[in-house]
Amino acid sequence: MTERKVLTDYVYQMVASFVQAGVEQVVISPGSRSTPLAYAFASTKEICMYRQVDERSAAFFALGLAKATAKPVILLCTSGTAAANYFPAIVEASYGRVPLIVLTADRPHELREVGAPQAIHQPNLYGEHVKWSVDFPLPDDAAPTLPFIERHIARAIAIAKCAPFGPVHINVPFREPLLIDFRDELPVATFQHIHMGKLVPSLEAQQELAERLCTTKRGFMVIGELALGTDIGFLWQLVRQLKWPVIVESLANMRTAIPKDCVPYVITTYDAIMKSDDFKALVKPETVLRFGAQPISKFLMQFITASQPNAYIVVDEDPMFRDSTSVSTHFIHAEIGEWLTQLTLTEPALEPAYLAEWQDANDIALEYIEHYAEAAVDEGAIVSHLLDMLPNGSDLFVSSSMPIRDIDTFLMPTTKDLRIFANRGTNGIDGVVSTALGFSQGNERETYLLIGDLAFLHDVNGLIASRYQECELTIIVMNNDGGGIFSYLPQSTIKAHYEDLFGTPTALTFNDMAKMYDLDYIRIEHITELAQKLVEPKKRPLRLVEIFTDREENVYAHRALWNRINAGLKAWQS
Amino acid sequence: MTERKVLTDYVYQMVASFVQAGVEQVVISPGSRSTPLAYAFASTKEICMYRQVDERSAAFFALGLAKATAKPVILLCTSGTAAANYFPAIVEASYGRVPLIVLTADRPHELREVGAPQAIHQPNLYGEHVKWSVDFPLPDDAAPTLPFIERHIARAIAIAKCAPFGPVHINVPFREPLLIDFRDELPVATFQHIHMGKLVPSLEAQQELAERLCTTKRGFMVIGELALGTDIGFLWQLVRQLKWPVIVESLANMRTAIPKDCVPYVITTYDAIMKSDDFKALVKPETVLRFGAQPISKFLMQFITASQPNAYIVVDEDPMFRDSTSVSTHFIHAEIGEWLTQLTLTEPALEPAYLAEWQDANDIALEYIEHYAEAAVDEGAIVSHLLDMLPNGSDLFVSSSMPIRDIDTFLMPTTKDLRIFANRGTNGIDGVVSTALGFSQGNERETYLLIGDLAFLHDVNGLIASRYQECELTIIVMNNDGGGIFSYLPQSTIKAHYEDLFGTPTALTFNDMAKMYDLDYIRIEHITELAQKLVEPKKRPLRLVEIFTDREENVYAHRALWNRINAGLKAWQS
Repeated sequence: MTERKVLTDYVYQMVASFVQAGVEQVVISPGSRSTPLAYAFASTKEICMYRQVDERSAAFFALGLAKATAKPVILLCTSGTAAANYFPAIVEASYGRVPLIVLTADRPHELREVGAPQAIHQPNLYGEHVKWSVDFPLPDDAAPTLPFIERHIARAIAIAKCAPFGPVHINVPFREPLLIDFRDELPVATFQHIHMGKLVPSLEAQQELAERLCTTKRGFMVIGELALGTDIGFLWQLVRQLKWPVIVESLANMRTAIPKDCVPYVITTYDAIMKSDDFKALVKPETVLRFGAQPISKFLMQFITASQPNAYIVVDEDPMFRDSTSVSTHFIHAEIGEWLTQLTLTEPALEPAYLAEWQDANDIALEYIEHYAEAAVDEGAIVSHLLDMLPNGSDLFVSSSMPIRDIDTFLMPTTKDLRIFANRGTNGIDGVVSTALGFSQGNERETYLLIGDLAFLHDVNGLIASRYQECELTIIVMNNDGGGIFSYLPQSTIKAHYEDLFGTPTALTFNDMAKMYDLDYIRIEHITELAQKLVEPKKRPLRLVEIFTDREENVYAHRALWNRINAGLKAWQS
Repeated sequence: MTERKVLTDYVYQMVASFVQAGVEQVVISPGSRSTPLAYAFASTKEICMYRQVDERSAAFFALGLAKATAKPVILLCTSGTAAANYFPAIVEASYGRVPLIVLTADRPHELREVGAPQAIHQPNLYGEHVKWSVDFPLPDDAAPTLPFIERHIARAIAIAKCAPFGPVHINVPFREPLLIDFRDELPVATFQHIHMGKLVPSLEAQQELAERLCTTKRGFMVIGELALGTDIGFLWQLVRQLKWPVIVESLANMRTAIPKDCVPYVITTYDAIMKSDDFKALVKPETVLRFGAQPISKFLMQFITASQPNAYIVVDEDPMFRDSTSVSTHFIHAEIGEWLTQLTLTEPALEPAYLAEWQDANDIALEYIEHYAEAAVDEGAIVSHLLDMLPNGSDLFVSSSMPIRDIDTFLMPTTKDLRIFANRGTNGIDGVVSTALGFSQGNERETYLLIGDLAFLHDVNGLIASRYQECELTIIVMNNDGGGIFSYLPQSTIKAHYEDLFGTPTALTFNDMAKMYDLDYIRIEHITELAQKLVEPKKRPLRLVEIFTDREENVYAHRALWNRINAGLKAWQS
């Protein structure tokens, strides 16, 4: 068989295996070593190809696509540091539980570790931050090769899709020449189907849980960001049956589109009311039941730790269960699923007064938060207005560090259909523009991005994607000229080195950047212009809205709100 | 002892240990977890602090500083994906042999792998791409802690500076609170001095080498990029004694400032003359002696492989010696040093005709290359003009992929004092702007950067550094709207998918970017404007010169040059 036919067979068999496993999207960065696979993907009609020349941004773009579709997305790059640029997004995918299939083209074995150009040590390049790493054999015409490739791709997909979702890495060496013969049809995939299991608790675990829940007089649920594709209907059903206060983080997407009969139980102001020592003393729980990732609020986690509940039950699909307190007592290894609705919860024993205390405090805080934007002009007020203005049926992607905290503070419980997404696996400010662009591509709903100036700047290269495919997104940059979150930390009380090390102002604005990328640019100097300017008809699918804010004003206004809520709670309790 | 005093002692002891070991520079990215160390560095007068908010760019900036100074440079970032963003530069530092000291702040042990925010698996984060990775203990007041920290920092520096230079990683966990008490004076360092050894070959090896060199009738030397801080005087002395043709890559910095008596031996046009089969047949060597990294030219390495010399001797400071051919016969484990001048080379046996053949061919090629820019208007001609125009005593940093090849083609042997640098550890197009900016900061000579549009765009965030410290650099972007190098590869012969996968034009120009960053911007539409515009007086220390070129024209003009040289060699040989 000719070398060229061997290579052609190999790469189309790879693509066929991905297609067979239901993968539909690939993000490719230009390079030479990856040529055979790039050709095979580009010439396959079943595959949708995206391109981005900065591999760091490319990987976050793929992450966004995977988050929007809850399906594995392929990344492809050439050998060398290209692959190293994927690392930040891979780490985020690992902790954020996002299925990424990372394909790195490599030099053949005779060019590894011998000083050849663009050759680095690629097998196992991402260490413990991928669920699996495999080094494929060089293309050849030996009988075992193609069947092995097929099944190893099936394994890679199965591992990426196994709860918890995560990234896998396939390193593929190619010898020159790298050209293939284009084919119109994919070869038959002999491996036929992957059937993934469901992770359910044992009957014993379910019984123990049900008993505990039914005998608890003082308990609450905590729901953080859930696995991609989770059917939250099962959780609502549990809420209905249990009638416990349920602390819901914005990223759980259970503050919006709330079923009417569940509205009374949803507590959204936990970060604010957990700042009141009196309230915390009042609602010391016996039992806490937690689902999803750790919520944004540090105060909540400190409260749980300090209150040392008799039972603090963590439900997680990963045996390395996510809980950073030292007081967890039970771990249930399970996905969110139908089993939650099958618990025997005949007579929940929760004291009505306990629920009422949470509801009253939440209502008091909500009252202050709802009226916040009437007087304030800071980022909190902007976020509050924005949440009101976003159209029904749209999605908001939110950056770390401060924007997601503001969303978590100002997102009121509502029946409006709005979803919130963020990169909270590791809470980085990197790659956010790209993730939002990828998310928007994979999403049928209109998408907005809320981001600070430093995070926007960090991944401004995300915009390069818009030169290779039409991108639709409204990017709202809150420009406070530096790192806003540090103003809330103890470092801000010390003047020495503060602006140098933490404030780090750049004095940059983004109108020229918008011009360079031919974006629709809307400049908002003051919050009063927000309502009018944000509803202007779109001139281009990719819009940049820059709103100027003040770091000191933000802290001042936030603290004033927390003080008002605290005083309100004091008045209510006395 | 108070927690705060323990923490303060710990971080100042770390800084004192670095200062004691001669480290003078740190590049810091903002973050909270790294606060104690950031404070200690910022408040220490012996340390020069640089800042950059994008950690990927920060790491390349540090790489540039280390390249300019040939000394270890410290990187400091917070926990989480910040550390992952360092990875591309660390990989480059590993293969490019650059001493980087990577400090990553980490969460304390109780917050690792428990779903806490911004906590990733940091110990050994960079796998095989650092020479050493150590996870420091939490600050405490136990007697062994500070002495251990001191000596482990000494070890880290010793390892980074041990031939071959490379990156090391120190992971440092901190518990909250993160504030320290500022101190004016560093504590005494009880560890006093690191004395690094010299790597010299055994007498036996020197004798064997000398004998081989003295009995060789047909042999040449190859010199690629050398270790940072190499004294090339030793190599010139060997050239003088041996009188062999010496093939010198531009990055060896032995084409410029050539000692007069060595000029006859320097062969610079190897990539061009190695394209002539007739010439290669003529100069088939018996012995090849190679120093430094593998040269840029693939044709040279293919020639060495095909000619199967009786002795192909590789001298390298790494036991994993760099040679990608399959014909090396001897390996000498050594640094460039005085031993090269002490070889007993009484009566070298080289045939004068053999030297003359190389010299004649080189002269023929030089003649064509020297006159190239009189007629051509492509990137080659631009590079040729540029090399003429650069002031004596200045340095040129050069990007992959095409610019460094053009430099290698068009840099004529000269006694002018000009040095060429590049990131050729892994030949990436990433991080080049930052490396050049860092290089310029660490360099007392005037620095220029030559770069293509995609590489410039890839690390445009390098410019953020100029918002935090005054940067001086002239950036010359050759904008051919896409990936120029692919036009020279077989992929360019196939129209299908070419622009999508390889050309990848963005249609971006950089005048708006220059405006955003307040750079001096010079736009050059045609090569004829080059001479006039490049000598205009500087308005700002940071300048961006954008020159528009055409990818097709570049290939056409280069090929025409090679054909002329080939024809010239044919005429000479017949």
